[in-house]
Amino acid sequence: MGRVAVEMSMSLDGFVAGVNTDATNPLGEHGELLHRWLFADPIDPADAQVAAEMRSSVGAVVVGRRTFDVGVDIWQDVPYPVPTFVLTHRPHEDMVMPSGTFTFVTSGVVDAVAAARAAAGERKVFLMGGTAAQQALAAGVVDEVQVNLVPVLLGRGVRMFDGLGGYPIELVQARSIGSGAATHVRYLLPPRGGTQG
Amino acid sequence: MGRVAVEMSMSLDGFVAGVNTDATNPLGEHGELLHRWLFADPIDPADAQVAAEMRSSVGAVVVGRRTFDVGVDIWQDVPYPVPTFVLTHRPHEDMVMPSGTFTFVTSGVVDAVAAARAAAGERKVFLMGGTAAQQALAAGVVDEVQVNLVPVLLGRGVRMFDGLGGYPIELVQARSIGSGAATHVRYLLPPRGGTQG
Repeated sequence: MGRVAVEMSMSLDGFVAGVNTDATNPLGEHGELLHRWLFADPIDPADAQVAAEMRSSVGAVVVGRRTFDVGVDIWQDVPYPVPTFVLTHRPHEDMVMPSGTFTFVTSGVVDAVAAARAAAGERKVFLMGGTAAQQALAAGVVDEVQVNLVPVLLGRGVRMFDGLGGYPIELVQARSIGSGAATHVRYLLPPRGGTQG
Repeated sequence: MGRVAVEMSMSLDGFVAGVNTDATNPLGEHGELLHRWLFADPIDPADAQVAAEMRSSVGAVVVGRRTFDVGVDIWQDVPYPVPTFVLTHRPHEDMVMPSGTFTFVTSGVVDAVAAARAAAGERKVFLMGGTAAQQALAAGVVDEVQVNLVPVLLGRGVRMFDGLGGYPIELVQARSIGSGAATHVRYLLPPRGGTQG
């Protein structure tokens, strides 16, 4: 089975979004600074390598409801050309998009991740959206976290790693790649069971 | 003049010390995990390189009072073999140690850094101690920050980058070195003047 990965761009002071996130501004105030490395023109070769690896390794996606609501209008498609599972409280028919299908899961993040793993084969399940990622981390169903650490201090906003329980949590640093615009570090999480959420 | 540098080991969730710091446990609960990379046996060559660079680049040190109080008994000397300025509210005679002299500065972090810069020549001034480093960051007298990012989540504790004001603060990522035990990233700070403190 493939691995379950959270990928996030994070400020040096630990924020994955700014304050005042809402449907039209899902990254909050100054949150756009977190993804500047990805949209730089020209993009740094090291950053391009990381982005390409993400695209080639993904086999299925679990996306939070809010990220779906905001993203589907932008993407006009699934976010990656793979089966995509939307974590939601409202049942919804499958949505067939140009490059894949949105399937709506109402029974929680653990079920959504399980469905995505079954669809991903040997490739990775990506978790998209801060709340979904936090729920998956707290539930202990995440195998690895890729942090794209960006050189900015936001001062306030949304922190990814708050409220997980079971601290201190010791990770294994698997790889670190620096560019001029970000440092990409991949961490492996210890097995935590599924009861902490 | 030499540059003023804050060097810190920080958890992935942004803590430079755990909770319940006190004189006998200055790094707080689980804080020892933050410096494990430095005391590993054998130490990773990349980590050893970073530690050696620190030793060879320092020309003077500014140390907070609490770090001094805890450290002097451990070091039985100045922390590095260079002039060392202790930030304190209580006047004190110079203390001549085997490898350098402790000079006590009662007029604040800006003065302490200025004295250290004068003593450091072309080499760097290191700020040691979380409170002193935070004060210097807030006062805008820090030129660079070296973060040794360690693969652990502490969940709670002392954060270095809180309360600086003037967010978002965009840094320049100057260098990134990864080992198996930590990722060492050097950031250059923008000039901020001296009025934010």
